Amino acid sequence: MNEVFQKGKQAKRASYALAVATTEEKNDALLQISQQIISDQEIILKANKLDVAAGEKDGLDKSVLDRIMLNEERIHAMAEGVRQIVTLKDPINEVLEDSVLQNGLQVTKVRVPIGVFGMIYEARPNVTIDAATLALKTGNAVILRGSSSAIHSNKALVSSIHRALEKTTITVDAVQLIEDTSRETAKHLFQLNEYLDLLIPRGGQKLIDTVIRESTVPVIETGAGNCHAFVDATAKVSMATDIVMNAKLQRPSVCNAIESLLIEKNWFAENGKALLQTLHEAGVEIIGEEKVVEVFPEAILATEEDWGTEYLDLKISVKLVDDVTEAIEHINTYGTHHSETIITEDATHKEMFLNGVDSSSVYHNASTRFTDGFEFGYGAEIGISTQKLHARGPMGLQALTSTKFVIKGDGQIRE
Amino acid sequence: MNEVFQKGKQAKRASYALAVATTEEKNDALLQISQQIISDQEIILKANKLDVAAGEKDGLDKSVLDRIMLNEERIHAMAEGVRQIVTLKDPINEVLEDSVLQNGLQVTKVRVPIGVFGMIYEARPNVTIDAATLALKTGNAVILRGSSSAIHSNKALVSSIHRALEKTTITVDAVQLIEDTSRETAKHLFQLNEYLDLLIPRGGQKLIDTVIRESTVPVIETGAGNCHAFVDATAKVSMATDIVMNAKLQRPSVCNAIESLLIEKNWFAENGKALLQTLHEAGVEIIGEEKVVEVFPEAILATEEDWGTEYLDLKISVKLVDDVTEAIEHINTYGTHHSETIITEDATHKEMFLNGVDSSSVYHNASTRFTDGFEFGYGAEIGISTQKLHARGPMGLQALTSTKFVIKGDGQIRE
Repeated sequence: MNEVFQKGKQAKRASYALAVATTEEKNDALLQISQQIISDQEIILKANKLDVAAGEKDGLDKSVLDRIMLNEERIHAMAEGVRQIVTLKDPINEVLEDSVLQNGLQVTKVRVPIGVFGMIYEARPNVTIDAATLALKTGNAVILRGSSSAIHSNKALVSSIHRALEKTTITVDAVQLIEDTSRETAKHLFQLNEYLDLLIPRGGQKLIDTVIRESTVPVIETGAGNCHAFVDATAKVSMATDIVMNAKLQRPSVCNAIESLLIEKNWFAENGKALLQTLHEAGVEIIGEEKVVEVFPEAILATEEDWGTEYLDLKISVKLVDDVTEAIEHINTYGTHHSETIITEDATHKEMFLNGVDSSSVYHNASTRFTDGFEFGYGAEIGISTQKLHARGPMGLQALTSTKFVIKGDGQIRE
Repeated sequence: MNEVFQKGKQAKRASYALAVATTEEKNDALLQISQQIISDQEIILKANKLDVAAGEKDGLDKSVLDRIMLNEERIHAMAEGVRQIVTLKDPINEVLEDSVLQNGLQVTKVRVPIGVFGMIYEARPNVTIDAATLALKTGNAVILRGSSSAIHSNKALVSSIHRALEKTTITVDAVQLIEDTSRETAKHLFQLNEYLDLLIPRGGQKLIDTVIRESTVPVIETGAGNCHAFVDATAKVSMATDIVMNAKLQRPSVCNAIESLLIEKNWFAENGKALLQTLHEAGVEIIGEEKVVEVFPEAILATEEDWGTEYLDLKISVKLVDDVTEAIEHINTYGTHHSETIITEDATHKEMFLNGVDSSSVYHNASTRFTDGFEFGYGAEIGISTQKLHARGPMGLQALTSTKFVIKGDGQIRE
């Protein structure tokens, strides 16, 4: 029996025990994990060094190596993150609906765990701790499938989790790591409907696309953010500048940074050049339509492809629009339904934009950079869903739950 | 450009207009449809006759022909169903969360339409009206892909819907029927991620399995019900008999009827034979494990396969169990996570069963036949979800909605 099937089966069995674990039992397990990764930090750092060395040998990008690398500070941050999950409210057993039917049946809809979810991810060993502890908090078993570039770190971290769980009432089978990081094990997970209730990919667009295309297990799509700012005719110049600069520059490599700037034509005529100049001076490459290049010759001429591109870099595409309607249509056509903002003083345009833009998070007069589980006060984030089913936008603990109808009677039968 | 792509594109565009339609506009459209199918009933019945005649010629089962067949009474029932949807509360724009962050940002989570959903279904032309009107109520556009066996009826019904919509502010593009019922159009819908937000299959297990296997568009799995009743040691004999008889016999062909009966061994020793006799006399074939056949020789010996079989017929598999724990394990192993009931007077066993059984609807001392959107008071039912994501159990209007974060600020940027 192969590793994926075997671990899937164990996880499924563990999930039934976890589903009836108390909040205290789950929190105790989290506290043990938090302590264990601190006491095991030498072992973990030693394993991590092997991954970093292998990555350097393989010539991985510096940014990727940075994502793989752990140090004492990062391990302490992980442990602190786990302690914060302890403080969050346990969503399991929350009563969502409760009614008594005319025939006397009591119908209650309660929140329950999903069961078993799989996490497929790249590099970042901290996802191992995040996913495992968020799973335990929500009564789920988890199957972790990290990448080969962090396999030593992931093994050390999961061993540490298992050592911690052995001191608790929670079975170690609740957290499974697939140690074979070949493409076959990922493919097997895509089809493990018998034991997997959900699969969450965390990583680049290519990984996410593959999982969506090949998985028969339900998937939550997290990912690409081709986010827009629309500067309307009545936008205050200083506010528009501050928001655009923040949304583009505060952290250009993340999904909630803006990639595209739409400017109402009259506002552009008056203030466009200055705004582009400010961006340009901050090191942002302007990729604009013809009218933009006419006014701002340092800009590069945009192609059709640019409107659909997530640069994740110091680049921004710029387009003039006639009005809010054109802005909404452009965003719905080229965007990835992640986060968009309108800067305007016009109440009608504001409502048109907030209602008409089909994205997980729509802003008025604020930076798109706030789309984040922690910023929204969820105390945790599994990822940011860009699909419409089950969860949309920043996902907190609730995204890892399902519901169940509990019906209590005294002999009712249907007529 | 082929039909599916073209209609998908039109539906997507229509969905943006529908998303901002008012409750009054949507209800007006529903009332017009309700009236139109009554005034068009001659045309509809004439088209339906073509389908029934073709079905008879093709030698379709009587039960299938009955599902295809329309008459005046059924058309009036459809029209009445649409009027009832008008009376339901519009779920769109419902505020689910609302908070003001420390930085002054107001974050509101509101209910919005899914966008465009596809419905792939067999025979039953009433699904055409159901799906179209539930879509309109929830602000969604819909792409209908019925089977060739009801194509004339479906065309007539959608023409009628379009005639009705022409009298309203809602675009006719909101309801699209794929007229080419070849396998290719279904396959194309499975991959229409660009325009489809959701795909719902309604029909036999084979159709549902195909959609789950081949679709890259998110799917809601509705379907198979291998439902169980567990008669515990302390079950009252008359209550157990009434519930088992009702759950098996009131309508054996539906998904919430029981297919399998688990009986605690001591209860069986005392009352098993009488219960099996009652079932047998009502025409139910008993398919039991060896100990069942020993006591009740009319029973057929069950094979391993029987425990996982949804008969949808006057048959029931019967197994003895040592206790509630064995019953829970058996159900979680062989069931389809639909509806299960425990008949017991023991409060501890009741809680163990309700918490431990991993099904959409778990009952105590009641028939499983109540798992139904109308019985649960939702006033409508899109289907019964047996998956855990997005919606589980009977799906009302909410299952056709998503959410969106609306964030209002006065210039906030992220530090």
